Amino acid sequence: DEYNKPEVITEVPGPETKKLLKETDAIQNTRAVSLFCDFEKSKINYLVDADGNKLLDCFQQISSLPLGYNHPAILERSIQSAAIMANRPALGSFPSKDFPRLIKNSLLRASPSGLDQVVTMACGSCANENAYKSLFFWYMRNQRGEELPVMGDEAFISCMKNQPPGSPELSILSFDGGFHGRTLGALSTTHSKPIHKLDVPAFDWPTAPFPKLKYPLEEHERENAEEEARCLAVVEDLIEQWKDTRPVAGMVIEPIQAEGGDNHASDDFFRKLRNIATKNKIGFICDEVQTGMAITGRMWAHDYWGLETPPDIVTFAKKMLSGGYYFSDEFRWKDGYRVYNTWMGEPIKLVLLEKVLDVVKEQDLVFQAENTGHYVVNGLRQLEKMFPELLSAIRGRGMFIAADITEAGKRETFVKKLLQKGVLLGVCGDHSIRLRPSLFFTPAHADILLDKVEETAREM
Amino acid sequence: DEYNKPEVITEVPGPETKKLLKETDAIQNTRAVSLFCDFEKSKINYLVDADGNKLLDCFQQISSLPLGYNHPAILERSIQSAAIMANRPALGSFPSKDFPRLIKNSLLRASPSGLDQVVTMACGSCANENAYKSLFFWYMRNQRGEELPVMGDEAFISCMKNQPPGSPELSILSFDGGFHGRTLGALSTTHSKPIHKLDVPAFDWPTAPFPKLKYPLEEHERENAEEEARCLAVVEDLIEQWKDTRPVAGMVIEPIQAEGGDNHASDDFFRKLRNIATKNKIGFICDEVQTGMAITGRMWAHDYWGLETPPDIVTFAKKMLSGGYYFSDEFRWKDGYRVYNTWMGEPIKLVLLEKVLDVVKEQDLVFQAENTGHYVVNGLRQLEKMFPELLSAIRGRGMFIAADITEAGKRETFVKKLLQKGVLLGVCGDHSIRLRPSLFFTPAHADILLDKVEETAREM
Ligand code: FES
Repeated sequence: DEYNKPEVITEVPGPETKKLLKETDAIQNTRAVSLFCDFEKSKINYLVDADGNKLLDCFQQISSLPLGYNHPAILERSIQSAAIMANRPALGSFPSKDFPRLIKNSLLRASPSGLDQVVTMACGSCANENAYKSLFFWYMRNQRGEELPVMGDEAFISCMKNQPPGSPELSILSFDGGFHGRTLGALSTTHSKPIHKLDVPAFDWPTAPFPKLKYPLEEHERENAEEEARCLAVVEDLIEQWKDTRPVAGMVIEPIQAEGGDNHASDDFFRKLRNIATKNKIGFICDEVQTGMAITGRMWAHDYWGLETPPDIVTFAKKMLSGGYYFSDEFRWKDGYRVYNTWMGEPIKLVLLEKVLDVVKEQDLVFQAENTGHYVVNGLRQLEKMFPELLSAIRGRGMFIAADITEAGKRETFVKKLLQKGVLLGVCGDHSIRLRPSLFFTPAHADILLDKVEETAREM
Repeated sequence: DEYNKPEVITEVPGPETKKLLKETDAIQNTRAVSLFCDFEKSKINYLVDADGNKLLDCFQQISSLPLGYNHPAILERSIQSAAIMANRPALGSFPSKDFPRLIKNSLLRASPSGLDQVVTMACGSCANENAYKSLFFWYMRNQRGEELPVMGDEAFISCMKNQPPGSPELSILSFDGGFHGRTLGALSTTHSKPIHKLDVPAFDWPTAPFPKLKYPLEEHERENAEEEARCLAVVEDLIEQWKDTRPVAGMVIEPIQAEGGDNHASDDFFRKLRNIATKNKIGFICDEVQTGMAITGRMWAHDYWGLETPPDIVTFAKKMLSGGYYFSDEFRWKDGYRVYNTWMGEPIKLVLLEKVLDVVKEQDLVFQAENTGHYVVNGLRQLEKMFPELLSAIRGRGMFIAADITEAGKRETFVKKLLQKGVLLGVCGDHSIRLRPSLFFTPAHADILLDKVEETAREM
């Protein structure tokens, strides 16, 4: 197998990539483009670029390929099921007769404990947007004791003009550093970077501080607990303060804040957050778009928390291939068309997800993510000791791992040098790097990664 | 060919569909489900349901299949290209090396006149949401003369808290009866039915009246022109009135308001609307999610208008298979990550679109839509004369055709009876029926449709 180490044969990005960039720039802004890919030549953990460079891909299309490139089982399933693509249904109104079976064999096999309802969406943003809507419906149903106002109620008229009471002044509480998508509702709960939000009108909704913890968590328990207690108190205050203006209908959190910088909090923090929601009768949405599907060493990252009451809603996308959300019976809407759109996701994604779940189970990839994660974190901590001016704050759960680049302004150079050595990783927050590899990332891949990081560190 | 007439063998919905409904209801609300489909047995204009009923499908998955079910060229292309699905890219950062060629051979072949930029999205809602964002970026750039504020500006800080000046109080002007999607930003410009909006917080943005015209348009020109003049005056007033609170950054309109009831306006109305936007230096978004791709007898419905200045942005989805929007150079954002998300649409959709465009061109389907449209409108007008208590306000452009069911409360019965005779059509607004067939709908299909409508009318 020649796919056992990276091979870089040109400067990265190379001449072919630069040519393609120029072509593409004629039709849209290309500043976010890193590489052009040769998908045919890519294989599991190795991405081959347009210039023929073979890169160990620890980012995997922004964490969205669970089994890497061209996994034979996925490839085979894609080819077998291609006809499904020729007839994309309006899934909310005209599903295929296979749909109930398909949902059972895919999404329902991965249901988070306590949540037996699920709806598909086409991406993580509409998953969150519709989760918020489900929460507003639930909140208003609780207020009035009925799914809908009585016939002739002014709410039916005022909502058509975006005015209360039909368009109620309710809010979703979110956290500094959180990321939940870029459509206007989701973006109002996103607080990752100014460039994501600048110049876009936003709902005036409350934002709570997310704990800024010291890593490793186990060495700073006392001060971290204080910081978490501070944040929890603010959450309670905000719920109280907003009661008379825009009541908080629910809160949304990521188990690990990803885009915002891979910020962790303790299981205890999340348990307490859940209890605050329960106590105040507001909804609790767990956004597992990036943390879901095995990568953290659990199927869902919130499995670690040991909750008494499950989240009300768990949203997903990326590695799940389909967007969507799980929810409890209480959050079912009672009228059709309240959560609805033309496509409502796409069945082919579930057909592929079914196979992904087979492979994850057969090969025990949840355990492998946990296991390899320990190996990588240990390796990075060794390097942190050797190069403290370069690496710090190593943190992770399973293979969902990040580190800070200690010296300000050095991150881009580090990532670039590493890429030139054939290792592709992602960045997040202002000064962090992150690993989001496929579920087939093993200690053997980790050794290559750690070697290249060490080599790079020596050069910096 | 046995696919030349509908064949109904059970009550519709039949026993198998009812069984599947019950199964599905265990995992989500199913009130919006009309039928379960047997896609394998379906063919172009004929949808076969789970009970084996063969239906003439004039709705085509909510207007989203351009060439109908299992078109051989699309089927073949799907199978050939299946591997693409196994490697879904993060298209904004890691596109395939084929991407520039693919965009050229698909979307750019269908570019509306004057718009040479295009970006892909995964659905119509995010197409509109991101079009709004592009418009806000453009508006703010014009305000300050630079793409971004100077370093250290308070906008960078305030936007992280959803507060102005970073999250500016700007608005999008939309129209009564308009539909632009169901995510919170898009939904704030949607005014179709209360059930789409009720209980969801909305931006306080201006809504203008959309002309309520008399049909046929050509027989009511004078009074329709007055009604349009009234609406245009309100638009100008609203732009003026909102200047000091939430300035209007742009407006969004559908060439024919679809969900809201297939409401038409004259080409002159749209030309004047465009001029109002130009004069006030606000953006003009034409939402062609439902009207795009040949069905109106033009590639884009706004081709009929004879605009001097093209729209600033044209959004698409549905029959285009991919979501996205075309835009002029002036609306290009200058920084990466301003219009961005993980998937940014999906290349397989463009691979299929390329083939759709080949077939549309080879078989002159734009002309066929126009031609068959005349035939159907004439046929329906005959029936309107015979059954004025049932049918009225026949209106259409190409095969984008609707009629009102004259007697209040009779629509659901009419649609149900027609379905039982093997003809499936859609509804819109409070009392309209709509046709959204594939581009292969010919006068032969129209004859079946007209016969069945006549039969049904006699029974009512
Ligand atoms: S908003 Fe999710 S696919 Fe468009």
